[in-house]
Amino acid sequence: MLKRASAGGDDGYRLTPLVVVELAPDAKEEAIAWLLNKISDSEQNGGAELLVEQLRHGEADREKDNRNVFLVGAERQRLLSGAEDLGLFKEFNDGSMRAFTCANKDNFKDFKGDGDGFLSMAECQYIVKHELDSLRAKNETHIPGYEKAKLYPGKSIIRRMQSKGILVQVFPLHETEELKRLSFSWYKKVKLSLQPLDDIRHYFGEGMALYFGFLEYFTFALVPMALVGVPYYLFDWEDYDKYVLFAAFNLVWCTVILEAWKRSSATLAYRWGTLSRKKAFEEPRPGFHGVLGFNPVTGREEPLYPNTKRLLRIYLVSLPFVLLCLYLSLYVMMVYFLMEGWALTLYDARPTFWMSVLTFVPSVIYAVVIEVMNLIYRYAAEFLTGWENHRLESSYQNHLVLKVLVFNFFNCFASLFYIAFVMQDMVMLRQSLATLLITSQILNQVMEAFLPYWLQRRRNKKMMRRASKRATLGEKEMPLADQVRLEANMSTYLGTFDDYLELFLLFGYVSLFSCVYPLAAVLVVLNNITEVYSDAFKMCCVFKRPFSDPAANIGVWQLAFEAMSVIAVVTNCALIGMSPQVKSYFPESETQLILWTAAIEHGLLALKFILTFVIPDVPKHIQTKLARLEFESLEALKKKVRAETCRLSVRRSAPPSAQTRAACSARLAKVTGFRTSWLFMARYLFIRDFGTGDDGLDALWAELPNFWFC
Amino acid sequence: MLKRASAGGDDGYRLTPLVVVELAPDAKEEAIAWLLNKISDSEQNGGAELLVEQLRHGEADREKDNRNVFLVGAERQRLLSGAEDLGLFKEFNDGSMRAFTCANKDNFKDFKGDGDGFLSMAECQYIVKHELDSLRAKNETHIPGYEKAKLYPGKSIIRRMQSKGILVQVFPLHETEELKRLSFSWYKKVKLSLQPLDDIRHYFGEGMALYFGFLEYFTFALVPMALVGVPYYLFDWEDYDKYVLFAAFNLVWCTVILEAWKRSSATLAYRWGTLSRKKAFEEPRPGFHGVLGFNPVTGREEPLYPNTKRLLRIYLVSLPFVLLCLYLSLYVMMVYFLMEGWALTLYDARPTFWMSVLTFVPSVIYAVVIEVMNLIYRYAAEFLTGWENHRLESSYQNHLVLKVLVFNFFNCFASLFYIAFVMQDMVMLRQSLATLLITSQILNQVMEAFLPYWLQRRRNKKMMRRASKRATLGEKEMPLADQVRLEANMSTYLGTFDDYLELFLLFGYVSLFSCVYPLAAVLVVLNNITEVYSDAFKMCCVFKRPFSDPAANIGVWQLAFEAMSVIAVVTNCALIGMSPQVKSYFPESETQLILWTAAIEHGLLALKFILTFVIPDVPKHIQTKLARLEFESLEALKKKVRAETCRLSVRRSAPPSAQTRAACSARLAKVTGFRTSWLFMARYLFIRDFGTGDDGLDALWAELPNFWFC
Repeated sequence: MLKRASAGGDDGYRLTPLVVVELAPDAKEEAIAWLLNKISDSEQNGGAELLVEQLRHGEADREKDNRNVFLVGAERQRLLSGAEDLGLFKEFNDGSMRAFTCANKDNFKDFKGDGDGFLSMAECQYIVKHELDSLRAKNETHIPGYEKAKLYPGKSIIRRMQSKGILVQVFPLHETEELKRLSFSWYKKVKLSLQPLDDIRHYFGEGMALYFGFLEYFTFALVPMALVGVPYYLFDWEDYDKYVLFAAFNLVWCTVILEAWKRSSATLAYRWGTLSRKKAFEEPRPGFHGVLGFNPVTGREEPLYPNTKRLLRIYLVSLPFVLLCLYLSLYVMMVYFLMEGWALTLYDARPTFWMSVLTFVPSVIYAVVIEVMNLIYRYAAEFLTGWENHRLESSYQNHLVLKVLVFNFFNCFASLFYIAFVMQDMVMLRQSLATLLITSQILNQVMEAFLPYWLQRRRNKKMMRRASKRATLGEKEMPLADQVRLEANMSTYLGTFDDYLELFLLFGYVSLFSCVYPLAAVLVVLNNITEVYSDAFKMCCVFKRPFSDPAANIGVWQLAFEAMSVIAVVTNCALIGMSPQVKSYFPESETQLILWTAAIEHGLLALKFILTFVIPDVPKHIQTKLARLEFESLEALKKKVRAETCRLSVRRSAPPSAQTRAACSARLAKVTGFRTSWLFMARYLFIRDFGTGDDGLDALWAELPNFWFC
Repeated sequence: MLKRASAGGDDGYRLTPLVVVELAPDAKEEAIAWLLNKISDSEQNGGAELLVEQLRHGEADREKDNRNVFLVGAERQRLLSGAEDLGLFKEFNDGSMRAFTCANKDNFKDFKGDGDGFLSMAECQYIVKHELDSLRAKNETHIPGYEKAKLYPGKSIIRRMQSKGILVQVFPLHETEELKRLSFSWYKKVKLSLQPLDDIRHYFGEGMALYFGFLEYFTFALVPMALVGVPYYLFDWEDYDKYVLFAAFNLVWCTVILEAWKRSSATLAYRWGTLSRKKAFEEPRPGFHGVLGFNPVTGREEPLYPNTKRLLRIYLVSLPFVLLCLYLSLYVMMVYFLMEGWALTLYDARPTFWMSVLTFVPSVIYAVVIEVMNLIYRYAAEFLTGWENHRLESSYQNHLVLKVLVFNFFNCFASLFYIAFVMQDMVMLRQSLATLLITSQILNQVMEAFLPYWLQRRRNKKMMRRASKRATLGEKEMPLADQVRLEANMSTYLGTFDDYLELFLLFGYVSLFSCVYPLAAVLVVLNNITEVYSDAFKMCCVFKRPFSDPAANIGVWQLAFEAMSVIAVVTNCALIGMSPQVKSYFPESETQLILWTAAIEHGLLALKFILTFVIPDVPKHIQTKLARLEFESLEALKKKVRAETCRLSVRRSAPPSAQTRAACSARLAKVTGFRTSWLFMARYLFIRDFGTGDDGLDALWAELPNFWFC
């Protein structure tokens, strides 16, 4: 919602604001000064070399407003070198995606002049965030003014300030113009068309764009199901035993679409340059704690926590807790079936209209209870996973996803499995499926988009009113200060977790049981279409802008969907085996029927695994392009090595003694670790030509002015 | 068997012979001269910079001996730079394994003085082979003297000469002393101990050592099975219905050992430095043909063959052929059962001793027929896979392994599956298993070690006789020429394929059905122990020394063994479900029994997949070491980038115009592809200091004596 102020723009700021840093209102002055100095200090001194400025008072400024709000920006050159540090991929002149390097910048496609507009604002914000995150303590033992906020060399300052509550939040700013354009092409237009994925990626980053891409893909993948489902529903409504064909269709469908998605996801990720991007080493997550020690990988001092202790916590506390919750959920389910039976007997006794409504009540109650249980369990899972004290954010996320997924799966599908395979009551299965599907959809849409929107509206009512007043006065845009404060009060988007989870459960309803309720696919398609709009709306208007996340795929969710599709094969085979149609082929022997069903199911599972193995995850033409890039970098390296060894064998001066050489080599290897020769050569030549440099190696170099190579 | 001649040794050769190149006896003089020149020419001229010398006449020289045999060696410095080119991993001073670089050589553990003994002979031979293989045609259109042996720029000369029959073979020489020492510590000693895997790796390379490591591991893994099996066999011999426990044990066992092997294989590969070694780009295999075009990855001119055509050949010819063969095998199996039934009725009519022997005849005949069919099918599979015209050797190997594996699996196990699950005759299953196991073991040992040994002995009888004559005369060692000719006539070892296949089938017998014949594990253990000795013997005495192969794991075989263990879960569950013990729990309902069996089986399969997923393939401490190496190289790169950008911003002279700069950058990027800046800087400084260099870029460089950076 912020107009992208040009450098030194109308608002009188010296910088283009990219990211907002909000400190606690009562943060101590010395801590603030120290942080600001760190942010703006040069890289040699361990700073981030960014621009920072305090937010001025807006018109809406009141006494209780937090004054410790700072805008962070950066020089263009700083952003470019940050992009190189991060290994950001951009489009090269030849159309391929390559890691950006400053030295090579003119060969990138959209690099013009001094590189204005080369990096998107989302990328700039990502770079700034990375630079802020990698601000590290040097010799400070604690944050100035906060004796208890301990630091050790190498600890991320921002993370420590965040975990101690000194830093409230860091968030990127919206761009009003861009956002307006995006929302018009995305969800405000009337004409039906595909989502502007490239624009979404441009504004929100790759992770978000992949989510919307998957949502769109999933919707299209469901269309054939829906098309088959409607006539099935219309003409065979009461003849629900004829679902064999539909189940077989289901079975093939869920295997094929997931394989196809992997390929189109790779295509998207290649186009956006995240497919071959190498991940940097992950830092410990903010909440991680332990005894100070040396990281065996980086050799840096950081808290360590023994893995065995973590495993004990996982297997002795978390696992039993999850199992207990599953048991509880099972118990609730049995209560539901009791209630259901009781309502049915009531209806049988007095079959009035109100009684027939009553038969739906247990299902609705159960659906609500499930949602509530999911919510409570979610908090418990977050607490437990935090308590397991994972070092990396990714490992924390994986454990959390696993816990939540298992419980949600069980909660949503246990009753359906019970009805289908224990009670073998297809009418009831259909009814429950419909109730669950519709209730959870309505609940989700309310909880997800309308509730936060309404809450936020209430919070910002006054500000809005003033804004509209100004609008009538002819001032079109809010001043920067008001905008920043408005955005700071918006809810924070917590990531795509819940959105994917919703899709996962919908996928489950469709792939597992839709053969007995062919309308499921239609409902899910309708839900997905509204989902696109409500998600787009909530991203643009309800939440703070999230930092972009250069994801290469949908991560652990691919695995979750594939596990679901395996379960779907088993379920559909069992449903086929149970159908009266198939049973009529084995009139005398049920054993024969079951054996045949099991044999076919095993064959299908084997086929599924073979297919997964045979179909390449990345389309051939992209594989070729990636291989080409790798080949080129390898060839360049080879050439370089050869050139160097050729030249360095030329002796420059009398060689030092073997002893000196060995000692120097050992010291150098200790300091630089790897490929000493490169640094060595470069430094040698540089020192000779340009004089000594600036960092710690110089003393060593000075000792070896005429070092003898090879 | 060759004494490792020291440089300029007793035999009067100027080189230490490493590899022997044997050309056809009628090869044209000009082709020979051209090849020898290529081998010894300098790298700048596209040669391999190796030493080459014709083999002189030995004492045993006769008219019909091939005179076109050449010894290839190399200077020590050449071998070291070759090791760097190949990215060979050696032990560093700090105990980790790192890619060897000449500039850093003094930091490697065993590097002393000028590096004598740093590379093992197997490594030297591997380097020489690589250099020979990468001898490429420049402007030659055909091999001199052979109009039909077409060449194109970049085509491997050795491969073309081999495919045209001009080159008979290239093989590495044995080292008599080393081999004697190895064979004593390996299979000639009386004391039982582990195999000297490190020595095997040192002499034969990592691929071979991993095979023997796997063989040893597999033998040890079978010991618990054998220990459980013996009392089972002794005390429950007639009570073969009590196999439930054994089947359950089987099921756990085959999952656990494969997971554990993955980890110990990673440990071995890390110790040997092949775990993190990056593979170079693969060249087309020798037999590959197609229309000349440009490879989309390397941009080099080479034959291309459309993938669709290959897929058509695979799915329309190879696949139907394999299915036909499977059908044929099924047919043979049915004939076997007919014969078996006929023999049994004969025995029932006249139960004499000879008649009881007769009942075994069909099994023996069937086992022999299976072996023969396998042999014929193998040739067909090789022909078909060759005809599919795969570009890469690895893809060829995968398709061949798959074809052979499926057929062998079917051939060996179809009858057992039929007996177990269709006939449900456990007595007959046990009998067949025993017959198959024992017959195939005896056949294998004969075919594998004794037959080639006997053939070779016959061939070299005369030479041996002369050698023994000389031994009595006091001359202990054969002259080099005789040794080379002796080794040239030894059989060529065709790789570990057959050895792994044998282990795979044994693993199948044990994991699938050993619960009904507990002695199977004991038999396999005994077989494996003799296998170690016979394989060791055949590697040392029967075959030519193979080139070492820096493998990081057992490759596609890990997958094959895992597939077998999945099948074993299914089979064992079914056997448990069929056992009278379990059946007695479900006296009234067979359906219930089957459903429970299927449910438990699905649970076990799910558990198996979860275990595979949860247990990391590489042990934690090795993961840490690998991560550390990667981290160090990343940090070094970062430092380098930073240092360079700092320095290069110093202007050296007046900048050229923006236009010149852009043009030069574009041209440079086109030539070097990637990271232009590096090469650029290095070249600039070098040219200024040392004058112009030697390769094609020089003209470009000369234009830019004072190029302005950044």
